[in-house]
Amino acid sequence: MGTFGFKVEAVDGPARAGVARSGHGDFLTPAFMPVGTAGTVKGITTAELRVAGADIVLSNTYHLFLRPGHRVIGELGGLHRFMNWSGPILTDSGGFQAFSMADRVKMDDRGFEFSSILDGSRHLLSPELSMEIQAALGSDIVMVLDECPALPAPRKRLEEAVARTTAWARRCVESYDGPGVLFGIVQGGTCMDLRERSAAELQEIGFPGYAVGGVAVGEPEDQIAGIAGRTAALLPEDKPRYLMGVGRPQDLVEAVARGLDMFDCVMPTRNARNGTLFTSRGKVNIKRAGHQRDPSPLDPECDCEACTKYSRAYLRHLFMSNEILGHRLHTIHNLTFYLRLMRRMRAAIFEGRFEAFRREFMSSPAVGVEP
Amino acid sequence: MGTFGFKVEAVDGPARAGVARSGHGDFLTPAFMPVGTAGTVKGITTAELRVAGADIVLSNTYHLFLRPGHRVIGELGGLHRFMNWSGPILTDSGGFQAFSMADRVKMDDRGFEFSSILDGSRHLLSPELSMEIQAALGSDIVMVLDECPALPAPRKRLEEAVARTTAWARRCVESYDGPGVLFGIVQGGTCMDLRERSAAELQEIGFPGYAVGGVAVGEPEDQIAGIAGRTAALLPEDKPRYLMGVGRPQDLVEAVARGLDMFDCVMPTRNARNGTLFTSRGKVNIKRAGHQRDPSPLDPECDCEACTKYSRAYLRHLFMSNEILGHRLHTIHNLTFYLRLMRRMRAAIFEGRFEAFRREFMSSPAVGVEP
Repeated sequence: MGTFGFKVEAVDGPARAGVARSGHGDFLTPAFMPVGTAGTVKGITTAELRVAGADIVLSNTYHLFLRPGHRVIGELGGLHRFMNWSGPILTDSGGFQAFSMADRVKMDDRGFEFSSILDGSRHLLSPELSMEIQAALGSDIVMVLDECPALPAPRKRLEEAVARTTAWARRCVESYDGPGVLFGIVQGGTCMDLRERSAAELQEIGFPGYAVGGVAVGEPEDQIAGIAGRTAALLPEDKPRYLMGVGRPQDLVEAVARGLDMFDCVMPTRNARNGTLFTSRGKVNIKRAGHQRDPSPLDPECDCEACTKYSRAYLRHLFMSNEILGHRLHTIHNLTFYLRLMRRMRAAIFEGRFEAFRREFMSSPAVGVEP
Repeated sequence: MGTFGFKVEAVDGPARAGVARSGHGDFLTPAFMPVGTAGTVKGITTAELRVAGADIVLSNTYHLFLRPGHRVIGELGGLHRFMNWSGPILTDSGGFQAFSMADRVKMDDRGFEFSSILDGSRHLLSPELSMEIQAALGSDIVMVLDECPALPAPRKRLEEAVARTTAWARRCVESYDGPGVLFGIVQGGTCMDLRERSAAELQEIGFPGYAVGGVAVGEPEDQIAGIAGRTAALLPEDKPRYLMGVGRPQDLVEAVARGLDMFDCVMPTRNARNGTLFTSRGKVNIKRAGHQRDPSPLDPECDCEACTKYSRAYLRHLFMSNEILGHRLHTIHNLTFYLRLMRRMRAAIFEGRFEAFRREFMSSPAVGVEP
């Protein structure tokens, strides 16, 4: 078991700015973690991640377990060395992907039994295997295996998921033997009394950090921040709170306003590859014919490589020609947008003007679509 | 019409080292020009091209004519600004692609009539249109429209192609009105007397540089260097000689040995995307299972990003997972290999030991396949 520290450096209402210390250095909160599914944030290098402002990345246990295999990565010295990233790495448990992406899934108290989409081989992702994989990868922050029902779900389903998540969390703590630390995951869906129960049971076990799971899995978008905020209030003030898989820029702002500290989402990177780009003037669909002859930068307020070296016309051309360089530049831009937003929130918290920042951002063109 | 200069700085037997001066700066010869088909060398930035050692790039008239259109690029200030490359650009005439890649092609004295593979629209690529396109792109070195028959071809076909190429070359010179200079292209296939006629007719027109065309278009591989060399001997010593579309590393060495100065080929970049990598120990197929757990660099003698920051195991993983970063790192590596080879040849010529270099290279593991 590794070491982990977290210090809240400033608060502004429920919003917090902090610093977390991991086995591979510090990261600042509010933190957004770019998603490097298969040991790479698609299309860009770790040096470019640094330039974009990332100081922690997330990688996916399920994908790396199937290919190239956690034992291979372990033998090669762990994921940090494998992907050439010297900073902190958080890995998910693999349960969510095993459940949602695999073939012929069967879930019970043992874990998730599934068939590999690569070769059909049958696997049981138990809490113990998830810990073994994440230990071999050498993750700094290891997520417990949890059960995350899609919403809406009947109360009984949510209740079972909470019980199973607590039981699995205990098994994870008992079996984990690696260089990182474990975060617990609060479930309970839209039932706040179940979330209360889940948060209490996990705190009885005791974790150096807690995640809010089961959010943005089918409930109305306008409930996301509310559920996340009410769950954050159930968690200890001196530990980081991680809202899993969320979300849009406005979701991040509303969640920070309610006391969340850490985030991950494929939205900036996946949207980049689809040609949907976040800018200070709103979301841009780079495919639009109107950009064909546009010599102006994608976002004049952005200092990333895509915005400082190329025109909208060129970015559109790369996208229309399905050129790799387009995916790459768009990914750099969207991540730069997200990571700058995190830094701006952090600054606003330190300066005691987070509420003004939030109001300004939520009424800015950035939350809409560029006309 | 722009300015262009060429100075042979050193000779060693037929091999030459020189410097060419274009409207966008100098490039050193022997020169390899990475191919940026659609205004981007697939997957990498122009800054990375510089790091790899490129000082001139080639782009394709046919592709840019169809998308985004030469008028669009012209309005945006030309191809240099569009793709953010400040160095020299050579563009081909578009004829080869119009003939080999388009649908329903008809060739006669007017040019190549073809249907766009993008939208089926019908176009006539005449010498005049090729000049108009390349002028709008702002190329520094503009290739005349030529006819390049696939080999083997009957003598009569080759004779017609030489006559048409000369006639088109005159029309190109008459119609070109742009910032670059024109290179003529010697045709004649495997018939040296036709190549002699072609070279003489082109020199009567007079060009600041000459290309050897119609090589590596179907004739046996072991004839490539011989034909190129015998054609080079027909061309003026004080002008650069460009061997079009060639080739393998050993082809470049043999061609430089025979007095060729400039080269382009998709081999390093296309092979990179197929996982075939050039190294000092021979060609590596990165897919091979033997690389799965290999912590060693792709090529210990290479200083590129792929070789200094990542293991073969990681590069293989990226390739097997079809990750964009793999294409990118492999492209950087293969171009670095090619461009280093050009620098080493240049140094050997200056030091008067080119023949020793050639023998050493041709008997080195680099020309084979890694065991």
